[in-house]
Amino acid sequence: MREIINGKKICLGTCYYPEHWDACLWPRDLDRMLEAGIEAVRVAEFAWSKIEPREGEYTYEFFDSFLDLAAEKGMKVIFCTPTATPPAWLTEAYPEVLNADKEGHLYRHGTRRHYNYNSPVYQEFCRKIVEHSASHYGRHPAIIGWQIDNELNCENNEFYSESDGVAFRRFLKEKYGTLEALNRAWGTVFWNQTYTAWSEVCLPGKTNSGTNNPHQLLDYLRFVSDSACRFAGMQADIIRKYCKEGDFVTTNGIFGNLDNHRLTRDSLDFMTYDSYPNFSYGLDGYRPEDRMKDRGCSRSLAEVRSLSPVFGIMEQQSGANGWTDRMEAPTPRPGQMTLWTMQSIAHGADYVSYFRWRTCTFGTEMYWHGILDYSGRENRRIREVRDIHARLQKLQEVAGARYLAKVAILRDYDNCWDAQIDKWHGRVEWLSQDSLFTALQLEHVPFDYVYLNHETALEDLRQYHTVFYPHAVILTRERMSLLERYVAAGGRLIMGCRTGYKDIDGRCVTEYLPGLAATLTGTDIPEYSFVAPDEGRVTVDWDGTLMEAAVFNDLLQPLPDSHAQVLAAYASGYYAGTPALIRNLYGKGEAYYFGAAFSLDTARTFLKKLSLTEPYADLFLLPEDCELAVREKEGRKYFFLLNYTKEEQTVDIKQPMRDLLEQRPVQGKQSLPPYGVKVLAG
Amino acid sequence: MREIINGKKICLGTCYYPEHWDACLWPRDLDRMLEAGIEAVRVAEFAWSKIEPREGEYTYEFFDSFLDLAAEKGMKVIFCTPTATPPAWLTEAYPEVLNADKEGHLYRHGTRRHYNYNSPVYQEFCRKIVEHSASHYGRHPAIIGWQIDNELNCENNEFYSESDGVAFRRFLKEKYGTLEALNRAWGTVFWNQTYTAWSEVCLPGKTNSGTNNPHQLLDYLRFVSDSACRFAGMQADIIRKYCKEGDFVTTNGIFGNLDNHRLTRDSLDFMTYDSYPNFSYGLDGYRPEDRMKDRGCSRSLAEVRSLSPVFGIMEQQSGANGWTDRMEAPTPRPGQMTLWTMQSIAHGADYVSYFRWRTCTFGTEMYWHGILDYSGRENRRIREVRDIHARLQKLQEVAGARYLAKVAILRDYDNCWDAQIDKWHGRVEWLSQDSLFTALQLEHVPFDYVYLNHETALEDLRQYHTVFYPHAVILTRERMSLLERYVAAGGRLIMGCRTGYKDIDGRCVTEYLPGLAATLTGTDIPEYSFVAPDEGRVTVDWDGTLMEAAVFNDLLQPLPDSHAQVLAAYASGYYAGTPALIRNLYGKGEAYYFGAAFSLDTARTFLKKLSLTEPYADLFLLPEDCELAVREKEGRKYFFLLNYTKEEQTVDIKQPMRDLLEQRPVQGKQSLPPYGVKVLAG
Amino acid sequence: MREIINGKKICLGTCYYPEHWDACLWPRDLDRMLEAGIEAVRVAEFAWSKIEPREGEYTYEFFDSFLDLAAEKGMKVIFCTPTATPPAWLTEAYPEVLNADKEGHLYRHGTRRHYNYNSPVYQEFCRKIVEHSASHYGRHPAIIGWQIDNELNCENNEFYSESDGVAFRRFLKEKYGTLEALNRAWGTVFWNQTYTAWSEVCLPGKTNSGTNNPHQLLDYLRFVSDSACRFAGMQADIIRKYCKEGDFVTTNGIFGNLDNHRLTRDSLDFMTYDSYPNFSYGLDGYRPEDRMKDRGCSRSLAEVRSLSPVFGIMEQQSGANGWTDRMEAPTPRPGQMTLWTMQSIAHGADYVSYFRWRTCTFGTEMYWHGILDYSGRENRRIREVRDIHARLQKLQEVAGARYLAKVAILRDYDNCWDAQIDKWHGRVEWLSQDSLFTALQLEHVPFDYVYLNHETALEDLRQYHTVFYPHAVILTRERMSLLERYVAAGGRLIMGCRTGYKDIDGRCVTEYLPGLAATLTGTDIPEYSFVAPDEGRVTVDWDGTLMEAAVFNDLLQPLPDSHAQVLAAYASGYYAGTPALIRNLYGKGEAYYFGAAFSLDTARTFLKKLSLTEPYADLFLLPEDCELAVREKEGRKYFFLLNYTKEEQTVDIKQPMRDLLEQRPVQGKQSLPPYGVKVLAG
Repeated sequence: MREIINGKKICLGTCYYPEHWDACLWPRDLDRMLEAGIEAVRVAEFAWSKIEPREGEYTYEFFDSFLDLAAEKGMKVIFCTPTATPPAWLTEAYPEVLNADKEGHLYRHGTRRHYNYNSPVYQEFCRKIVEHSASHYGRHPAIIGWQIDNELNCENNEFYSESDGVAFRRFLKEKYGTLEALNRAWGTVFWNQTYTAWSEVCLPGKTNSGTNNPHQLLDYLRFVSDSACRFAGMQADIIRKYCKEGDFVTTNGIFGNLDNHRLTRDSLDFMTYDSYPNFSYGLDGYRPEDRMKDRGCSRSLAEVRSLSPVFGIMEQQSGANGWTDRMEAPTPRPGQMTLWTMQSIAHGADYVSYFRWRTCTFGTEMYWHGILDYSGRENRRIREVRDIHARLQKLQEVAGARYLAKVAILRDYDNCWDAQIDKWHGRVEWLSQDSLFTALQLEHVPFDYVYLNHETALEDLRQYHTVFYPHAVILTRERMSLLERYVAAGGRLIMGCRTGYKDIDGRCVTEYLPGLAATLTGTDIPEYSFVAPDEGRVTVDWDGTLMEAAVFNDLLQPLPDSHAQVLAAYASGYYAGTPALIRNLYGKGEAYYFGAAFSLDTARTFLKKLSLTEPYADLFLLPEDCELAVREKEGRKYFFLLNYTKEEQTVDIKQPMRDLLEQRPVQGKQSLPPYGVKVLAG
Repeated sequence: MREIINGKKICLGTCYYPEHWDACLWPRDLDRMLEAGIEAVRVAEFAWSKIEPREGEYTYEFFDSFLDLAAEKGMKVIFCTPTATPPAWLTEAYPEVLNADKEGHLYRHGTRRHYNYNSPVYQEFCRKIVEHSASHYGRHPAIIGWQIDNELNCENNEFYSESDGVAFRRFLKEKYGTLEALNRAWGTVFWNQTYTAWSEVCLPGKTNSGTNNPHQLLDYLRFVSDSACRFAGMQADIIRKYCKEGDFVTTNGIFGNLDNHRLTRDSLDFMTYDSYPNFSYGLDGYRPEDRMKDRGCSRSLAEVRSLSPVFGIMEQQSGANGWTDRMEAPTPRPGQMTLWTMQSIAHGADYVSYFRWRTCTFGTEMYWHGILDYSGRENRRIREVRDIHARLQKLQEVAGARYLAKVAILRDYDNCWDAQIDKWHGRVEWLSQDSLFTALQLEHVPFDYVYLNHETALEDLRQYHTVFYPHAVILTRERMSLLERYVAAGGRLIMGCRTGYKDIDGRCVTEYLPGLAATLTGTDIPEYSFVAPDEGRVTVDWDGTLMEAAVFNDLLQPLPDSHAQVLAAYASGYYAGTPALIRNLYGKGEAYYFGAAFSLDTARTFLKKLSLTEPYADLFLLPEDCELAVREKEGRKYFFLLNYTKEEQTVDIKQPMRDLLEQRPVQGKQSLPPYGVKVLAG
Repeated sequence: MREIINGKKICLGTCYYPEHWDACLWPRDLDRMLEAGIEAVRVAEFAWSKIEPREGEYTYEFFDSFLDLAAEKGMKVIFCTPTATPPAWLTEAYPEVLNADKEGHLYRHGTRRHYNYNSPVYQEFCRKIVEHSASHYGRHPAIIGWQIDNELNCENNEFYSESDGVAFRRFLKEKYGTLEALNRAWGTVFWNQTYTAWSEVCLPGKTNSGTNNPHQLLDYLRFVSDSACRFAGMQADIIRKYCKEGDFVTTNGIFGNLDNHRLTRDSLDFMTYDSYPNFSYGLDGYRPEDRMKDRGCSRSLAEVRSLSPVFGIMEQQSGANGWTDRMEAPTPRPGQMTLWTMQSIAHGADYVSYFRWRTCTFGTEMYWHGILDYSGRENRRIREVRDIHARLQKLQEVAGARYLAKVAILRDYDNCWDAQIDKWHGRVEWLSQDSLFTALQLEHVPFDYVYLNHETALEDLRQYHTVFYPHAVILTRERMSLLERYVAAGGRLIMGCRTGYKDIDGRCVTEYLPGLAATLTGTDIPEYSFVAPDEGRVTVDWDGTLMEAAVFNDLLQPLPDSHAQVLAAYASGYYAGTPALIRNLYGKGEAYYFGAAFSLDTARTFLKKLSLTEPYADLFLLPEDCELAVREKEGRKYFFLLNYTKEEQTVDIKQPMRDLLEQRPVQGKQSLPPYGVKVLAG
């Protein structure tokens, strides 16, 4: 059985850098961790030079000392492969391992993640050091698991090295087989881009006007993801040859241009997440108008849940953030570390590891504070860790429980990436995703993200009575078939504007819009337009409720011979009176087509009209500023109520429940102090 | 006789890409075009690979099929040279054909216009393919004319390839003969830039602080223009060897860093313009404070008229615009296509070709909508084309009529380009040009642009009773002589601040300011200054009317021994009371010197004070939001009244006139519906 | 004895470019200068090609003519080395002399300062031309002094050429001796940056995320400074071999990434400054909210005083500023040239040289106006120069007097540079430096900057009863010892937040904060934080006065066993009540630790609470908008009152004094006209 994330306990860890501190400090550090309730440390993710100080010379003297001490003290260790930071001797001797910008300038040694995934030289160096470490430590008693690399695709998720060029061509050859197929998929007849030899096909590089072929870009992002997945997979395969039964393989995510679902499926036992909610209070990114702020991390946690229903937090914020040249952020206020830890747990984390034990006294991240400051002196934050640990002891029964949601938002990587490339797509996608998340939070509707892929089965959707697929611009027959079966079986599907107008290559379809979605939604779209900036706010009248039709407007009409009904029409502009929302009865279920993007008020209107708000209204009356999260195990539900404000909030508990943290029965109006959390069992 | 723009008819066309669609769609497409009133299609401007799929292998199979079909259907064809987009095999084998940025990074294959004009290799490839196409199709019955390349200098009008460096040196040797002359013209003694060998002379490249020698930059822009003109000329010469009598040569403009007058004079039968008024309603460029918006296109049309009094529109907007990564724009509202078509015709277009027939389903421009959407289904926009065609039948007598103006704005390329290079110049130039155009529009004063060059004769100016030459910073004796003769002969000239302080090399003159303009304007300028930001709005008192003296203030005094009178003085700042406006009687005419830039209110004040407003006040009372344009043929005037707003407007027709579109007499108050147009004959 | 800045007279000069004008203009120009009171001209700083027109061919024909004419006319000359602008033949033949950007792209010929300091080739060319010029003109009677190069480190103070890479490595080898020492200092164990061979060590170049190791950056700035100092020193050493007794060596500063104190100490007789106060009124940098504007130049003048108590102005603004592509600025208003000249003199300038005689008619700086405009005609500004000269005759007794201050702001290059690299440091440093300067100005407190370095002695500090060292982030034992002795001897020291948390390498200390400053300030800092943007304005209650605790908050507690008293506590946020200001009695003096940055109101509160405001309140009642500066010689004080506004101001002189400019006794309320100046002797 795994030592952590095993369904049996919820526990704490931290990130430790033995190489940053004199070895004489290690014993006391480990003792203080254990005393504070920390059971595991992650080590070695940037320590290549401690293992291979010169090319081909491997030594484990340093980590042997540390791991033996850890074993002796009873501290569990997550050991990392050090491939995120190739050493200076390597990048100097083999500059081909470096990543480059679009113009071919190499990113030089001195930060991190400056390598490219596709350099055969680098792959060989990585293979060797992972093999050495895994074989040396595979059976070390202190080790409970392995982390591959560090934050794959962080810092930079675009690659333009020569090796990437070669690999991209190989990737395309495998995908398309012939240049004819590639030319067709990329629409190269436009602007005379037709390729006549594979050698002509390149990375989407520097061009006039800075524009690239959008279909090439879509394949490029797929290629970047594929490269990262293969790189991680190569490491995972080596580790699994040597590691002990029960020891896990993970990596800490989640970052862009990466199919994290494939990564998890192919290479990991579970995903671990790096959670820094305080970014939302930083001096360079503070947005007073954002209602979510640190609560926005719940969106990322929902993404992680879609990878691993029960997961770990490899880096949980425990102090101020910051690099020397950016990200100036305040210290978490008293209670916020607890709040954020509970936020992680509420969404399914059974292991929470604080980043980091003590703040590094040098380097770019010397303002990325750990639990302790530079001196290591006792402080407010370690006291809060001890308190968190004490509280967790009262929550152990929650371990292994799964987050419970009856509403889902469907996603897929094709559309995620197309929205990055294509501003017409991105405009609607980003607004709707933000708004839906915020609306669901404010209305206390627990929800899941479900990523559609070749493995997705009907039962993956049937657990949700309602699913939103806001802007499925790219649609495939396979996905439509799944959606049709879902609706036919009684599900409710809501789609927004621009659905179905592209194929898998990102090319527009010539069928009547919404293309493959026409039948299911009973909708025809003879005309469409961006909302003109001089138009102001376009509204839709839904049975007397006016809501915004933001960003883009499809002008709808019900498809003849369908069961489509017009539910709402545009109320302004030259197309006032034109249908804007259609519901189609299909099998036992229903499909909605809404002709615009979802702004916040619109998203809330949908939730109200579809009776989705406050699904636990019989149990709680909750203020908007508190999140409700629900985990369930063996039929028992655990309700997490989280107050993200610095003001006291009042929650009304309408039925007798048990307050786990206070270990007492509760009912009626209860106070949630600033940053306070309640965990209730039904 | 030419088939279009022949003074006999006004007709419609479209842009078609047979290579984007299955050949089985062609017959139906051509039938539908003809049925909608479309008489011509432009083809092949990005189709190099269809003609020369591999180096040296020429084939006309593809376009033979299309052109033969067109001939059969009775569709006229404008055939293009494909040089805007060199094929992948060419740029891979000969990267020297590519343009580069200032640091020498090549712009790679994948968009358009990535070539440079000066590569001998590229010139040779172009010469060959143009020769092949012209000789193959020179006598094809479907073809009525030829387009050279596509949008010369669009996307990027700066060139830094190695071939450009070589050519720039050659250009300078031809211009200056000796390094001494170049050193003098460029003022290289400043900052020790003196050249001692031609090999030291380079393109204005990457420098410390990003600054370049301004005189070198001025010659560089002249060089870019010269390169483009030569490149087009080489193609025109080849085409004319083969094409049929009456077939025309054109290109679609107009773009920067290019002497379009020389281009037209040297190589074209007439200029065609690409008109996209809806950019002004796009999501990324919408400026609510701009009163002109789509009406601003009339400014560009006036520029085109200065090239070709009767011209064509090669690309007239017929749908939403957009690239995948920029230019998000709404669809034209009902009526706007008609409005914009009539705007083009009002200014002198006798051929209007919609871009494009059907929207491309792939590539960067898949949001650059045509008349039809992706599916090709019948829609609102093709219905509007049919309606436009029907209306045009009622306007045929206007064909060949010329735009009628009694006011001109003088321009010249030296000053246009100097204003780009020199911020002190640009600040006043751009404000005044914007303001004068807007003021003339709001006051319903038809005007022309007249570009001064070596060919300009007195009679070119004498047709105007008043000319503005707002900031003729660079002046030459030749131009001054022309202006002096114009004024002496009874003309009225208005010049603004900073006139005459530079010579043809962009060097400041050592004569008393305004240099060569002193005598004509009777003005002396002992002192001058930018308006200080802490000064607020500087005003001028002109007989009790206060108007702004924007951006820059020349402090004037009348020149002794002239007939100069002070008309207005500064009314604020430490130079209150100093003359700001001088009128000099000169021969039978008068010259005005105004010491500042023209802001909108100032420009309107000038129009009022000089009795230029509402020249057709005896015929019409017009709202500000409607444009008045006048075309004249054989003594008969045609008045175009265009409503750019989405509100109904009322015009008062004071004398009996004939409404051509409605084919009935009209007089008195008439309604112009939203986006409505009236064409009246006196 | 020196001809200028000799304690005997205050006089005027100008900058002249004989190479820009026909030689026939020289005699009249010199005559007009002398007639206007100009005694000296600076020449030749960009005239390399006039001396070495081709490699190895030296000629002094041109400057012989000019210098002989100057000698004949009685005009003194400051002769420059021309190394700021290498000629075209040099940069073409030896591109290695060019500076480069981070990606290695060379900055090409065509502007200035495009060279790098470390190219052996360039150093050799410079050595030779300086040797030739110094030996040729060392004894020329017209010459009174030498200027090295021009504006060292202006335009660009970062260097990335190959020669810089080599020199950086050499610099580091000299500094650290071993890689182990470098690895420790740079904290390379972080992110696996450890170096194993010197060849791996590079300039801080292009990296992923654009981030570099902060300790490497700190050494890089030291290296840039060292390079510039050595380059200047090489030239100074050559000049001193040849120049006449009494002839001085200077350069015109002051610019960044340069230890101007070492430069002055090693190579100069005194620093000269280039003063352009009108930048604050330019169109691209005008900040209405800045209360200082042109008065802000007094801050730079105070910096210059810290280098040379009595100094020169090599370039004093005499017209509008501007390059052709930036810096659009209005002309100085009548009186402003006088005001700015007097501002320079008030701070210690005994020589003021106007830039430039006549405005250049070509090149990038053709809008950088001189006294005369392009034509050279008589104008308002030369009349103002004549008037200034007349006034100066009444101030001659001030010559040699030193600026008198009892308050100092301590600075050091380690912290200046660290604040550039480190945003957490920069945020507090820049706000506090701005605020303290502004507060001292508004409260009429003359102050000095004192730069701490190895030479600084106790007596350098003891002349000040109070010193501010606002954010001495980097502290050393040596500096702390000096500060402790200063306070022990009766001084008063005020330190702000973040003091002492870094060592000389920019690494954080592991001692309790404020590190080395703990004992002297009696302060302990258990916790700290940026002020969170959602917190609003954090306030501190100091005996009932609420003042802001801006940007960053150290939460303080008095150190046990010290004489520390809490003077003020935070009044808002979760740490309300926590000490924010501590005073520690130490020896005969006192040290204050304030836990935040100094905003303007806070700085003014400090000045009030410490009774520092209006030190001459017994002599004057002054409006905030007037500056008070004091120079003292042989016990006599000279008070400069300067009105920076365009409004008249009233000053109240409380005791009988002598008005030097008006040569009469004054007392009571006196008017200072717009831009007016009074110089009073006690």
